[in-house]
Amino acid sequence: MIVNFWFEFGSTYSYPAAMRIENCAADLGITVKWRVFLLGPIFRDQGLHDSPFNLNPAKGRYMWRDIERICAAEDLAFRRPSVFPRSGLLAARVACRFCHAPWLSSFVRAVFRANFEEDLDISTPEVITRCLPQTGDDPEKVLKEAQLPESKVQLRAQTEEAVRLGIFGAPSFVVNDELFWGNDRLEVALSWAKNLNA
Amino acid sequence: MIVNFWFEFGSTYSYPAAMRIENCAADLGITVKWRVFLLGPIFRDQGLHDSPFNLNPAKGRYMWRDIERICAAEDLAFRRPSVFPRSGLLAARVACRFCHAPWLSSFVRAVFRANFEEDLDISTPEVITRCLPQTGDDPEKVLKEAQLPESKVQLRAQTEEAVRLGIFGAPSFVVNDELFWGNDRLEVALSWAKNLNA
Repeated sequence: MIVNFWFEFGSTYSYPAAMRIENCAADLGITVKWRVFLLGPIFRDQGLHDSPFNLNPAKGRYMWRDIERICAAEDLAFRRPSVFPRSGLLAARVACRFCHAPWLSSFVRAVFRANFEEDLDISTPEVITRCLPQTGDDPEKVLKEAQLPESKVQLRAQTEEAVRLGIFGAPSFVVNDELFWGNDRLEVALSWAKNLNA
Repeated sequence: MIVNFWFEFGSTYSYPAAMRIENCAADLGITVKWRVFLLGPIFRDQGLHDSPFNLNPAKGRYMWRDIERICAAEDLAFRRPSVFPRSGLLAARVACRFCHAPWLSSFVRAVFRANFEEDLDISTPEVITRCLPQTGDDPEKVLKEAQLPESKVQLRAQTEEAVRLGIFGAPSFVVNDELFWGNDRLEVALSWAKNLNA
């Protein structure tokens, strides 16, 4: 059984989900399909021109405390990024274009750590290059290919697919036709997949 | 240790939380303080003139499916209300005014069941009367007292207190200064309280 893991590199709650999902899924014999998308266009369609956490100060204050508690409970390092949300566009183009690369999940985790542990600007080619594994493809080639017109089209199509699936936030998990939203639904989504497996 | 349980009678996710909290808390030796409030004024302050679940159709579709799954998992009956959100004003005035009544928690659960199991109009005195336990105070007296000017002031003050505590949605749980938001955080809030107990 497959869990489709829909994430966005700028999203705080996608960070603990991305760090946890592969181990949790492996324990249950479930395969993770990493599906990156962009929240920006989805929020703009809702009439929002910034993260809901910036637009609603009470919700934002809560989220920063909540993510701190979650990371502490999961033994994940966390530093509040000095810029929020950071643009995950370049990283998303790489993760979308190279979704079948053997280094994909390591790359995704490295980008999340750069943003939420090291407070680095993940919108820059320098940081993204550092996140590519040394044993993988040539970073220069990867970055060039990720920015080809067809790669941009591919990411746009993947974001449109997210919308078609009913996704409105990140992280989201899709198991067959069932949608689960939020890092706190990771376990429920995996057990849903496991019960279909059985 | 005390868990302050902040809920709103019109809120879908408050329903499973209200049905579950007393048993879950008792198992851990934690006392529940039932704190009703109104989401309407809080949403209006955010510039919203309806439930976010109505304003954002994708989020709304997700919520109805999600609450159905949650209720099934918790063995709670659920029928989607024909009107959403229903005004919980009258019920909230009763629950706020009679917060120390021995029948308070039974009343709260009966109102939630009326709204989310029986699809009854909880804004009416008839339905609220039915929700008052037969062995409690005289229903006519309760409804009259709940609508006194001082009762209205009391509920307004309690909603303002929710805002001061940083509450922006329902259900919310407050343990000392820690805020937890969402039915799916009930367990985390209770273990937070339990660890302070220890």
